[in-house]
Amino acid sequence: MLPVTRTQPPFAITRASHVTLAVTDLPASRDFYRDVIGLVVTDESADAVHLRGLEEAVHHSLTLQKAESPRAEQVGFRVETDDDIDRAEHWLAAAGLPHRRVEVPFQGSTLQFVDAVGAHIELTSRMDVVERRMQDFHTYRAGAPQRLDHFQVVTHDVQAATDFYAGLGMRLSEYTAADGTDELWGSWLEVKGNTHDLVFTNGRGPRLHHFAYTVPDATSLIHAADVAGSLGFGDEIDRGPGRHGISNALFLYLRDPDQHRIELFTTHYQFIDLEAPPIRWDVSNPRRSQVWGMPASRRWFFEASEFPEQPVREPLLAATPATLEDYLGLH
Amino acid sequence: MLPVTRTQPPFAITRASHVTLAVTDLPASRDFYRDVIGLVVTDESADAVHLRGLEEAVHHSLTLQKAESPRAEQVGFRVETDDDIDRAEHWLAAAGLPHRRVEVPFQGSTLQFVDAVGAHIELTSRMDVVERRMQDFHTYRAGAPQRLDHFQVVTHDVQAATDFYAGLGMRLSEYTAADGTDELWGSWLEVKGNTHDLVFTNGRGPRLHHFAYTVPDATSLIHAADVAGSLGFGDEIDRGPGRHGISNALFLYLRDPDQHRIELFTTHYQFIDLEAPPIRWDVSNPRRSQVWGMPASRRWFFEASEFPEQPVREPLLAATPATLEDYLGLH
Amino acid sequence: MLPVTRTQPPFAITRASHVTLAVTDLPASRDFYRDVIGLVVTDESADAVHLRGLEEAVHHSLTLQKAESPRAEQVGFRVETDDDIDRAEHWLAAAGLPHRRVEVPFQGSTLQFVDAVGAHIELTSRMDVVERRMQDFHTYRAGAPQRLDHFQVVTHDVQAATDFYAGLGMRLSEYTAADGTDELWGSWLEVKGNTHDLVFTNGRGPRLHHFAYTVPDATSLIHAADVAGSLGFGDEIDRGPGRHGISNALFLYLRDPDQHRIELFTTHYQFIDLEAPPIRWDVSNPRRSQVWGMPASRRWFFEASEFPEQPVREPLLAATPATLEDYLGLH
Amino acid sequence: MLPVTRTQPPFAITRASHVTLAVTDLPASRDFYRDVIGLVVTDESADAVHLRGLEEAVHHSLTLQKAESPRAEQVGFRVETDDDIDRAEHWLAAAGLPHRRVEVPFQGSTLQFVDAVGAHIELTSRMDVVERRMQDFHTYRAGAPQRLDHFQVVTHDVQAATDFYAGLGMRLSEYTAADGTDELWGSWLEVKGNTHDLVFTNGRGPRLHHFAYTVPDATSLIHAADVAGSLGFGDEIDRGPGRHGISNALFLYLRDPDQHRIELFTTHYQFIDLEAPPIRWDVSNPRRSQVWGMPASRRWFFEASEFPEQPVREPLLAATPATLEDYLGLH
Repeated sequence: MLPVTRTQPPFAITRASHVTLAVTDLPASRDFYRDVIGLVVTDESADAVHLRGLEEAVHHSLTLQKAESPRAEQVGFRVETDDDIDRAEHWLAAAGLPHRRVEVPFQGSTLQFVDAVGAHIELTSRMDVVERRMQDFHTYRAGAPQRLDHFQVVTHDVQAATDFYAGLGMRLSEYTAADGTDELWGSWLEVKGNTHDLVFTNGRGPRLHHFAYTVPDATSLIHAADVAGSLGFGDEIDRGPGRHGISNALFLYLRDPDQHRIELFTTHYQFIDLEAPPIRWDVSNPRRSQVWGMPASRRWFFEASEFPEQPVREPLLAATPATLEDYLGLH
Repeated sequence: MLPVTRTQPPFAITRASHVTLAVTDLPASRDFYRDVIGLVVTDESADAVHLRGLEEAVHHSLTLQKAESPRAEQVGFRVETDDDIDRAEHWLAAAGLPHRRVEVPFQGSTLQFVDAVGAHIELTSRMDVVERRMQDFHTYRAGAPQRLDHFQVVTHDVQAATDFYAGLGMRLSEYTAADGTDELWGSWLEVKGNTHDLVFTNGRGPRLHHFAYTVPDATSLIHAADVAGSLGFGDEIDRGPGRHGISNALFLYLRDPDQHRIELFTTHYQFIDLEAPPIRWDVSNPRRSQVWGMPASRRWFFEASEFPEQPVREPLLAATPATLEDYLGLH
Repeated sequence: MLPVTRTQPPFAITRASHVTLAVTDLPASRDFYRDVIGLVVTDESADAVHLRGLEEAVHHSLTLQKAESPRAEQVGFRVETDDDIDRAEHWLAAAGLPHRRVEVPFQGSTLQFVDAVGAHIELTSRMDVVERRMQDFHTYRAGAPQRLDHFQVVTHDVQAATDFYAGLGMRLSEYTAADGTDELWGSWLEVKGNTHDLVFTNGRGPRLHHFAYTVPDATSLIHAADVAGSLGFGDEIDRGPGRHGISNALFLYLRDPDQHRIELFTTHYQFIDLEAPPIRWDVSNPRRSQVWGMPASRRWFFEASEFPEQPVREPLLAATPATLEDYLGLH
Repeated sequence: MLPVTRTQPPFAITRASHVTLAVTDLPASRDFYRDVIGLVVTDESADAVHLRGLEEAVHHSLTLQKAESPRAEQVGFRVETDDDIDRAEHWLAAAGLPHRRVEVPFQGSTLQFVDAVGAHIELTSRMDVVERRMQDFHTYRAGAPQRLDHFQVVTHDVQAATDFYAGLGMRLSEYTAADGTDELWGSWLEVKGNTHDLVFTNGRGPRLHHFAYTVPDATSLIHAADVAGSLGFGDEIDRGPGRHGISNALFLYLRDPDQHRIELFTTHYQFIDLEAPPIRWDVSNPRRSQVWGMPASRRWFFEASEFPEQPVREPLLAATPATLEDYLGLH
């Protein structure tokens, strides 16, 4: 039996689409995302830098905002039309969730809300259209990231988070559960037809663990690591390269100058047909996290970006020391 | 102005999913698709072989049927549920198109019809679920094809074909048109969120030009060519490797023992947001077909698989000799 | 029985090392080799540009010299020490071959001569040492060529050319011969421990067919093609990608603005142990030239760079029309 | 000033060529090297299995011998001719080093000796010639290792080991030294024209740290890791993937069923010209060991294969705890 029921609300989220980060040194962060990661700068001002992946026709998928302290400001999703924004607004009001309409440069109708576990979510229906750059091969840098793909959020209550997004039409593709139970430790939720747009894992939250861009292949991933090394950011790789059992991603995680985390990964598998059941992994199975690869660093496990004004809560499911050591691969 | 209007019928096609080919030497064809291409054999009998890509949880995406002469039997798409099949049946009846319910082994409710330009189309709502094999890395062969992705059909009337599928909810992502006009020469239509599930190009039709599987990366594509070479099928590459301007695919085309054509390609770009307009290419622009690469062979241009009992008609748009030479890159 | 006898003269050539080309538009050629190919510019003046591969510690492996008309000026090899240059000079005098000492900027003792079939050869014992750049990954462009590897020269007399270089200590690794004979059509000669430093093929000569740089892998080769395409040089690929049977090279050939030809290829195999015999290929076996891949263009077969003041002679072995068509793969 | 003087003895070593390992479960070891690593089995008996890389024309580069306990039996090098074996025998006698002529199946004249620091070395002049398999692309498995490339030996006295092999004609390409001194901690020695055939590092020795095979590219390296994972050997990766500063190798280390260690790596750079000086790295510079990548495991640093009957000695240069932690990257 699946631990989650999916329903379609009167509006449709179509994909994970953009993220807004508060950063303390705007030029340093811009240089990092442009030169070490390889994103394209679409627009730049004294207060903000907008970037996108090489294939993206949207104005931005990453917004850096100058601030006093680093924060994950908004995790962004797309809906199809302005009408979806209107219907989402009504639905949020009925659900009693904090929300507001906002004007965001280069975006169409935009709505922000706080979800069931405290993450800051932004929905928009449109962005300014810019040129896709994936055929400007001579401008490729580093990992040549093509598009923003998904988010991972640490939460104190994975079940509540999963139920909330299943209620927004998201579908569970894979999940981790305590051995012999359906106690959810992690959930991989999707809406765009592959394994995830949004992931929740158990821990102190809400915090944004990472946002992820696709890269074309394993060679691009290694080249991204090489470029990080040659530009002096080799130590900012806090996990990988390795292969996740869940979703089959070949991954590399890097920390930006404010220690926000970005994942570069090759793509996951298609997940469209309804008869395919979600894949269950025991949380004690180390292959769920890596089929091979060196253990993740402690900072990969314990560090993440907080949202503004959202208190961080201890997880409902407490890791025993034994489990934790296993989780870290430190036996 | 777009040359095509999209409407949603009362049923929803979700993706290009499977193809049925009539082949004259079943073991030879099985060996080709298993050893030269790298597909997984799911099931095998005296009359038919079913194969799938490495990541596919569906029973089959390619069915080979023993026959007296080679034909493209069915081009297959998925719908979400059995109800979609019922609604499709009513819709086809109202539209006056030939159609029939059929029992197909390993599939759920299945409906076959002949489309507006004579192609044989099969819709199904479900397949038997089998294990995804993309993490059995030690079993990878040749190009390690992951999943069936799209079809290309040659038709005498690209405009009619495009209008028909836009009326089934498909969206135009790219198209070719005669210079300075909106006279359609080719249309790339999608439903699953990237550039195409179904392509129509101008020529003698209806004929299936090729069906396409994704491969993980450029290295896999080259390895597929190397394996074709070492197994004695090097001459069965009739185009590529090269890079299409349209959709940005890195491609390799091979002919099977009956001269059915399969494309292996790395993936295309995401195409979900509604504000992104389709890309228009003049049919005289050689970059639409290849950004680089040796000219395609004559047989790539002129040979394709006929459908059973469907007369092949001359194209409405006649290529002038000059255009043809240009088309072939033979200047 | 081998068609060639190898002897060691009193000096030792160690490797193919550098090439000097006369070019008509110096900035255009520099841009091509820097941006489309990805070489590093070491030095630049009004009359000459010196470039090198990413891993090379030598000052230059490619020298472009401004001239009225395009020519292959010098094909360069390294010897170990200044003493080798002295001994080579005596040897050439005794052999009665045209030769001269020259001063070449950034090089140690340098000696030029005309070989037995009219090719212009330059030997040097030393170059200025510069920094290897292969770990400046963020500066990689296009195919990221690592080092100059070998030359191919078209000659009217392959046997004479082969005998000459075998007499300079070069070893035959592979060769093509007319069916059932040992009539040499092509010879692959090496000195540095893999399959070739110098190749001779039958045709109108002496002309330099191409010089070759290694690239790290198939992905780099495809990226080189993509970059050529995106910078408008897609049509300057006159062969490939494809796989040579001989030496197992995965190859791509491009023409520079003066139509000099450069090959990018992944590496060949090690060839050190004396017991390994050379590999013989019948000239009628198409796999010698390509295991797979589209036929080479006519210009790849018939165009090459002449040496200054060296008359081009018709080949001793005349191709019959039938053979030629086969050679071109135009059946 | 270089810390090492190179001289040429009256015989010439041409390359690192083969290794003999004592293993406790012959079928398990064969399966590992054939299926997880991808070597070709040339010959198999009740007592021994001989394997080679895909491009190798020599009968074997790895010999597994059934034994009671695991040992590194012989580290093998090639000389050019039988005469070199004779001259080496005289030279070893004059040097007073333990040595003996032996008959080894499938090999020509063979001589074994114990070197200055206790490593077991075997020289041979010839092996049976077998077919190169690099163009049997359909038989490629795992990392598709092409050829044995080099050895790394842990020794209590790096300076003595380095002096010994410099006296056999090997050339220093890179080395590590204590800060501000020329106290050798590690030496990379070569004879075949790229950065190393034989490496010595400071520690308890003599022990064979690893032997290394080349793989074609980064994608092959990742595929090797994936295959190790899917065959249940993911935990046997004890370091990597990562990039060494020294020699620029992209590396992956795996342990076999007896915990012998094999390295798979993409190739290093060419090192032929005499004017290129060796590269010096301070032992405190972490980039020498990795430009990027997770810290090596403890077992990578401290475990290695002993030679038969050779007492293991404590290193002359003692690591301080601070240095060690730094060395391990455990700060």
